[in-house]
Amino acid sequence: MREQIAIVGVGCTKFGEHFTKSWSDLAVEATFEALSDAGVELKDIEAAWLGSFRPGIAGERNIGSPLAEAIGFLNKPITLVSNICATGIDALRNACLAVSSGMYDMVLAVGVEKMRDAGSRSLMLANRTDGHPLIGKGRTAPSFFASCAHRYFHEYGIGRETLAKVAVKNHHNGTLTPKAHLQREITIEEVLRSPWVAEPLSVLDSTASCDGAAAAIVTRADIAKNLRPDYIKVAGMGLAVGTERNIFDRDFNFLEFKVTQEAARQAYEQAGIKDPRREIDIAEVHDCFTITEIIDYEDLGFAPHGEGWKLIEEGVTTLEGDLPVNTDGGLKAFGHPLGASGIRMVYEVVQQLQEKAERRQVKNARRGLAHCLGGPAALAGVVILERND
Amino acid sequence: MREQIAIVGVGCTKFGEHFTKSWSDLAVEATFEALSDAGVELKDIEAAWLGSFRPGIAGERNIGSPLAEAIGFLNKPITLVSNICATGIDALRNACLAVSSGMYDMVLAVGVEKMRDAGSRSLMLANRTDGHPLIGKGRTAPSFFASCAHRYFHEYGIGRETLAKVAVKNHHNGTLTPKAHLQREITIEEVLRSPWVAEPLSVLDSTASCDGAAAAIVTRADIAKNLRPDYIKVAGMGLAVGTERNIFDRDFNFLEFKVTQEAARQAYEQAGIKDPRREIDIAEVHDCFTITEIIDYEDLGFAPHGEGWKLIEEGVTTLEGDLPVNTDGGLKAFGHPLGASGIRMVYEVVQQLQEKAERRQVKNARRGLAHCLGGPAALAGVVILERND
Repeated sequence: MREQIAIVGVGCTKFGEHFTKSWSDLAVEATFEALSDAGVELKDIEAAWLGSFRPGIAGERNIGSPLAEAIGFLNKPITLVSNICATGIDALRNACLAVSSGMYDMVLAVGVEKMRDAGSRSLMLANRTDGHPLIGKGRTAPSFFASCAHRYFHEYGIGRETLAKVAVKNHHNGTLTPKAHLQREITIEEVLRSPWVAEPLSVLDSTASCDGAAAAIVTRADIAKNLRPDYIKVAGMGLAVGTERNIFDRDFNFLEFKVTQEAARQAYEQAGIKDPRREIDIAEVHDCFTITEIIDYEDLGFAPHGEGWKLIEEGVTTLEGDLPVNTDGGLKAFGHPLGASGIRMVYEVVQQLQEKAERRQVKNARRGLAHCLGGPAALAGVVILERND
Repeated sequence: MREQIAIVGVGCTKFGEHFTKSWSDLAVEATFEALSDAGVELKDIEAAWLGSFRPGIAGERNIGSPLAEAIGFLNKPITLVSNICATGIDALRNACLAVSSGMYDMVLAVGVEKMRDAGSRSLMLANRTDGHPLIGKGRTAPSFFASCAHRYFHEYGIGRETLAKVAVKNHHNGTLTPKAHLQREITIEEVLRSPWVAEPLSVLDSTASCDGAAAAIVTRADIAKNLRPDYIKVAGMGLAVGTERNIFDRDFNFLEFKVTQEAARQAYEQAGIKDPRREIDIAEVHDCFTITEIIDYEDLGFAPHGEGWKLIEEGVTTLEGDLPVNTDGGLKAFGHPLGASGIRMVYEVVQQLQEKAERRQVKNARRGLAHCLGGPAALAGVVILERND
């Protein structure tokens, strides 16, 4: 990109079942926390990108107006971006492109999703009526990732215990994260005993649907340095959108997601990263199910194919490990309100890089990655953030 | 913006009731016509922006994947943009920002909407279930613009005959436009006699819902000049998103739309335009109803407030006039598939600026404007295009 892009403020609501807060309440909370973090005012913002996959299930319209109304940002440019689970990361990506374009100096990216008012079936029903090629035929995200787990077990000889360690790790990290949805320790035994969602994945292998919002203030580095010395650089961004009919592709093997590989390739190339395992210090990855986090390790280049499971078995991705992953609990424990997740990940990476992560603070983190996968496995987004010093 | 942005190719399907063509068929047709017009191949495209307000009513998902699948643009960056009637113009705007950012050299913007398979009620029902603040209370676009017409008649003393002249003009232009949905002449008498939609607006005061797609290839001017000498410059862009609850605003007078004024202000400032009436040669404006076109004249600065009606009475906006408006028939006769309309307008402006508009060609058009209004009157987008010589 022409310009060095910087994040100068981030905000995030507590994720959870917010029955007493509206879609607008969440958008307001995340936005004004980000503005306050940046030390700027709403009047300093020139344009906004709103990521919200299904404002409709909260009774809001899928256009920019709900954000305009919520935060009082009227008659300004607001673009609604929708790309299922990568919605938030794509809203941020478009905000970064817009600043680098020279059109705007300072913009806002907000991800909001309010999923619990309508119950989890409403989203599935919405997907069904929109002609989702798998859900429309009775195929769901759990059954898709269950197939991946079966295949992975078959090929690489691991079992449910290894997957359970991902859930245990992320739940532990959640206990150290005041804004996380789920803040309780779990044991391998509990994961193995918990009810099936789609065998071999249990309830505790799965993320929980919830409400939440996250926001980021994006500007150029030359402006950022006058706002705060510890602004965060956007070093690389990637987005890859494939087909939701991927399982009908004869090359689809249920063991790797080309969209993650491609989004990572774009971001690594831009950031000049050749060995992500060594050059990335922390990562927030899309752990919608425990198996997904392990496949993510491989697709993001943290481990060779078939060896991602070793990172969890060897403790590499714990808070104390060499490459901590999902330090805030991830989708598993922090929660997964679709449009908010990508920016929530960026929020956590920023906390870690600015050394504000308190009890879950990782030492010497200088470069972090956020990764979202959606579809399932039909599209992915990756963002790489760096300290500026 | 940092870079001079150029449009090097445009494509547009015939608009109409395409019961034998799918959403994908339309996307393919528009995209490959645009690629062919630019003399480039799909492999030259690095990223895409898809504008589609309701892919769901055609059984498609509101993410980038339907475009990826339709045109075979797999594992690339595709952002779905949704901003009701300004969806297409906002998709193009984001594509332009992305090229100016330096991230991509050549990108695609596509607008697609397939509205007729499901019947016009399905969109209204979708709006209702998404909590549209007016339609949810039984208020529709026709009744909103009918209120504007009543108010305009009351304030400025015109009647239905003046509005009818807008419909007659646009239907005439439609007869000269092979891709327009409606290609027949109508008379003032027919407009006045046609059934009420919402009094004082009749069927022939109103746009017809239909299916269609349009596409544009966006690059930098320095690349464009090697592709074709007659590339078109993007001189200015504006977007303003307000509230759909605008009629509850005590300042709302039903006679002007601040979002159009603000989107135009942004675009004129960027393009260095001070007197749009003199400096714009042709315009495609949002004529969802005849009254809307007249209010657009005023909000876009083509006439003082209360005097827009004079442009139609004096023939200024006919093909032979001083400032031809909706040379291809506009929403009224070309049709209005929501996500496609903004890029369809750009398609027509490009045809005129490149002197390819055949029987409807305007003389000496060097600078054109496209304007979309959505909500109703909750958001607006404006793009200004120029010849490069």
